[in-house]
Amino acid sequence: MTKLKKIDAAIRDFYQKKTPPVSSDLIIAILYSVDSGGKRIRPLIFLDLLEGFGLELTPSHFDVAASLEMIHTGSLIHDDLPAMDNDDYRRGRLTNHKKFDEATAILAGDSLFLDPFALVAQTELSAEIRVQLIHALSHASGTFGMVGGQMLDMKGEGLELDLSQLAKIHENKTGKLLTFPFVAAGIVAQQEDRVMENLQEAGRLIGLAFQVRDDILDVTADFESLGKTPGKDVVAGKSTYPALLGLEKSYAILEESLNKAEAIFKDLAEYQGFKQDNIMKIIERLRFHA
Amino acid sequence: MTKLKKIDAAIRDFYQKKTPPVSSDLIIAILYSVDSGGKRIRPLIFLDLLEGFGLELTPSHFDVAASLEMIHTGSLIHDDLPAMDNDDYRRGRLTNHKKFDEATAILAGDSLFLDPFALVAQTELSAEIRVQLIHALSHASGTFGMVGGQMLDMKGEGLELDLSQLAKIHENKTGKLLTFPFVAAGIVAQQEDRVMENLQEAGRLIGLAFQVRDDILDVTADFESLGKTPGKDVVAGKSTYPALLGLEKSYAILEESLNKAEAIFKDLAEYQGFKQDNIMKIIERLRFHA
Repeated sequence: MTKLKKIDAAIRDFYQKKTPPVSSDLIIAILYSVDSGGKRIRPLIFLDLLEGFGLELTPSHFDVAASLEMIHTGSLIHDDLPAMDNDDYRRGRLTNHKKFDEATAILAGDSLFLDPFALVAQTELSAEIRVQLIHALSHASGTFGMVGGQMLDMKGEGLELDLSQLAKIHENKTGKLLTFPFVAAGIVAQQEDRVMENLQEAGRLIGLAFQVRDDILDVTADFESLGKTPGKDVVAGKSTYPALLGLEKSYAILEESLNKAEAIFKDLAEYQGFKQDNIMKIIERLRFHA
Repeated sequence: MTKLKKIDAAIRDFYQKKTPPVSSDLIIAILYSVDSGGKRIRPLIFLDLLEGFGLELTPSHFDVAASLEMIHTGSLIHDDLPAMDNDDYRRGRLTNHKKFDEATAILAGDSLFLDPFALVAQTELSAEIRVQLIHALSHASGTFGMVGGQMLDMKGEGLELDLSQLAKIHENKTGKLLTFPFVAAGIVAQQEDRVMENLQEAGRLIGLAFQVRDDILDVTADFESLGKTPGKDVVAGKSTYPALLGLEKSYAILEESLNKAEAIFKDLAEYQGFKQDNIMKIIERLRFHA
């Protein structure tokens, strides 16, 4: 089984192994959004980094990967709600509240925020590692991370933001959950402080690259390649990197961030015996090619 | 400081100690609902039980108590949303989405679901105890507990449910989070399996008592004493204990559950040296007095 399939199986097992479920309607709605063809980039980064540090992947590692994808999926369900971004499509399929209803989508998202902590807690990693992972995951996703950033984003709609305000939104809304797989891999591989700092910085750079890439795609892509309505940022009055800096400068920031992240992993490979091949492939895929 | 004030201070510290916050608007909305005059019955049960087992309360215990109240508060914010119960008032004040807006209320609830796990993870309890608490809290509140029960409740509106269906809704929607303080106290006080089973059963009984009491109050109380619009269950087409069994039988179930819970703690007092005074006072307050 590919890594991607094993991540999906870990999520599915969590929801389908306990029988009878409390509400099968809820689990159907959760799995609808889990199964929506996401690229699983966050959990794949985590797993690739673990292998880079020389670990052999175990079911516990896939459960941690799954927990991260669950929180990400929950955030997409809530972001799409009418009171938030009001999106009808996501990855080319109806959004959760369009496929089911608003109450179901709210509850499916709530589940995907609450459940992952049990999933990490029941892995076979040491209790100390589990607690560190849970702390990092909660912190990256809640008030001091993703949700805080989403609130800033909502409040910033229709306002003219400057670059530092825009950066603060993205560092939190998407950046912290994109940094989590880097930090989590360091926790599981029990790396020293200096390596943890490098991982944190690599996560920040990849997070920035992701957001700039997303903003560029919202301007340049069509529905088919994007899987959702393009130009939504402009319609919603959201500040974006292309709007603030132009497309050319946005492409340059994307390249620069990816180059810096690559340099970090080259250093880790040289001085720590880190195996860089897989993470380099992921970074390469974030570049635009002519 | 009273226990209740220390619980509130623990929540407030979590949100206000990190400066600057990502979004102060989000924290204002969260604390608006935290400060809405709840009776903190769940965390107080937890703390009273710890004292019953002879532990001296520490800041870590108050942080665990706070984490439980945070999830409860998050669930109230989401339950009140227009797509769910559509309530304008809660405990005599405007609900979160009426005071702020729907997007803010969704995000405030999300925060209150994601943050508590970091709060428990950063306490000074042993890593093993923290992991057990986190597992129990996640399990009680997510798909296999509170959220699952809320989904059943939504799906059951307008249908004629029988007693076992009604019981399943409440065991999950409110029961599991009311059982958590009993189980959590056993985890922290490191009680043996037999005592854990007794605590679990006591939690189940108190949970049932709570729900029957709530259903009775929805029929018999007025806005002033209830702090929210009475008769909402009837209007929403929800099955309730008084509707299924009549008021007299509902009162009888309430009394019987409380008596059985009392008997469990009398036994623990006799055979385990458990100090029962505080929990008995809480149970006593759940009775209706002529």
